[in-house]
Amino acid sequence: MAYSRVAILGTGLIGSSVGLALKAARPQTQVVGYDASGDNLRRAQGVKAIDRRGSLRDALADAELVVVSTPVGAMKALFEEIAPILPTQALVMDTGSTKTQVLDWAASLLPQGVRFVGGHPMAGKTETGPDAADAKLFQGAVWCLAPLPATPRDAIDEAVALVESLGASPYFVDPSEHDGLVASVSHLPYVMSVALIRHLGHERSWRETASVAAGGFAYTTHLTDSDPQMFFDISRTNRDNLIRRLDLYINELESLRELIRTDSPDVKSAFEEARQLHQDWLAGRAQGQAAEGDNPLPTTRSMLTGSLFGRFGRADRDRP
Amino acid sequence: MAYSRVAILGTGLIGSSVGLALKAARPQTQVVGYDASGDNLRRAQGVKAIDRRGSLRDALADAELVVVSTPVGAMKALFEEIAPILPTQALVMDTGSTKTQVLDWAASLLPQGVRFVGGHPMAGKTETGPDAADAKLFQGAVWCLAPLPATPRDAIDEAVALVESLGASPYFVDPSEHDGLVASVSHLPYVMSVALIRHLGHERSWRETASVAAGGFAYTTHLTDSDPQMFFDISRTNRDNLIRRLDLYINELESLRELIRTDSPDVKSAFEEARQLHQDWLAGRAQGQAAEGDNPLPTTRSMLTGSLFGRFGRADRDRP
Repeated sequence: MAYSRVAILGTGLIGSSVGLALKAARPQTQVVGYDASGDNLRRAQGVKAIDRRGSLRDALADAELVVVSTPVGAMKALFEEIAPILPTQALVMDTGSTKTQVLDWAASLLPQGVRFVGGHPMAGKTETGPDAADAKLFQGAVWCLAPLPATPRDAIDEAVALVESLGASPYFVDPSEHDGLVASVSHLPYVMSVALIRHLGHERSWRETASVAAGGFAYTTHLTDSDPQMFFDISRTNRDNLIRRLDLYINELESLRELIRTDSPDVKSAFEEARQLHQDWLAGRAQGQAAEGDNPLPTTRSMLTGSLFGRFGRADRDRP
Repeated sequence: MAYSRVAILGTGLIGSSVGLALKAARPQTQVVGYDASGDNLRRAQGVKAIDRRGSLRDALADAELVVVSTPVGAMKALFEEIAPILPTQALVMDTGSTKTQVLDWAASLLPQGVRFVGGHPMAGKTETGPDAADAKLFQGAVWCLAPLPATPRDAIDEAVALVESLGASPYFVDPSEHDGLVASVSHLPYVMSVALIRHLGHERSWRETASVAAGGFAYTTHLTDSDPQMFFDISRTNRDNLIRRLDLYINELESLRELIRTDSPDVKSAFEEARQLHQDWLAGRAQGQAAEGDNPLPTTRSMLTGSLFGRFGRADRDRP
């Protein structure tokens, strides 16, 4: 992908990391950034994620690749703004956390024939903003891809090549299936974490609770450090899936509660089964990565300094 | 604490780590180990957590310190067995995950005048067994202490000095308060993790779910790697607290669910509040540790290799 000109619209963690990764792969690529926040934009330039800052019109002029990496909540208005000034031949990708709504907006607001491929890199950190950007953020990660029905084949091939050049494994997924999956693996875990710390934080004994809380608590509350705006947008654009997932999860908690309350021996087998599922999941990931030649197990930086959210992904391309 | 002879009853992760930490602090200490599992015992000797293996009677003979570090479920029978052969002047400590039941057993089964101090180091790993033992496991951790009403003052002072010599911060707590606190910060988070992976693992879409699951999922399911037997014992000896905590947690989830379902702007403030609570918690820990001169933020080894459960603790000694 010999892009000479790339526009990144939204220069937060993901947009800036895309800029760094693109420039690491091809230093001659000229990356122009745009962000509603001038501060974000200046910091993105400061970390060299973009070569220069521009207005929306500047950024799009002659761009061969347009990456839309704002929070999902800002995308509708942005699509409306860019529609009349989008270069016809540019590949347009987004990196939003939910896909159904974004694809609907793209289909209805962007010009007919737009070379649009929705995307979602399954990588991130709880830290936000360009200062946390990392050229290697996508190495070994799964990158979900969801083209529009009318997206031409060559645009899809180009998106695959782009994602692979950033070190990620493309994973084609239907937008609604995507949103169901991320409700399970990301949005529910986030809400679980929020509920844990809030219900304890509101109690009079919170100070004592906080004093004895250690590793287990750190793991299960880590996601609360994520960007509240991002997850607020997610909760609105993926509401039905998240509600359904919460209901299923609460049912499971209630079943376990009942087993524990009645002192059932099934408690132990439930605990054993959970460990087995987890170990199989880890083994599957390690295997998928080894097959792809990625870093088998990327280093986890300290949870306590708020780094890492996870950048390890199982490659899987068994879909069209 | 110049112990020349120590008995460790139960040479799993915690017992073996105590052995290593004691011997690191005072190489001349002779540590004798006992475990119902001969394999555990041999491996504990293999990693030099104990100097020699013994029968229960051997291990206790002339011991000045007796550490009971079996799973809680095995402690009642063990107390019955050691009661007639316990050296009168030995300090007896346990390291069990729950305290009310253990203290009841100690009071009713151990000899009158026993120098018993219940304990619970807030440190661990999901890995189990002597091979995972670490002399530094307790560095910077909170170590809950719960003496019996009749425990003499000098035994309590001795327990404090011992815990400090292992690098931990003593934290005096009433047994029932302890069990309420650990239900919040450890037992509930574990059950949350089990429920997450089980309800997804039982679905037909689990293979796809597992493919896209990344960092957020890894954090929130990490605790499922813990020893199922340990948590089964916990669920039985801390049932009422765990049930109460699950009910409160489910209530909180249902409140959040309702806010999300009705598209309330309070969703965003709930998310913001959770992040603030978490950041304050981390800051409090860091501060407590800096004041004590501990390692400010211990390194987290990779979650994906199954290491670390967390060994960082806030010092707090404002209780008698």
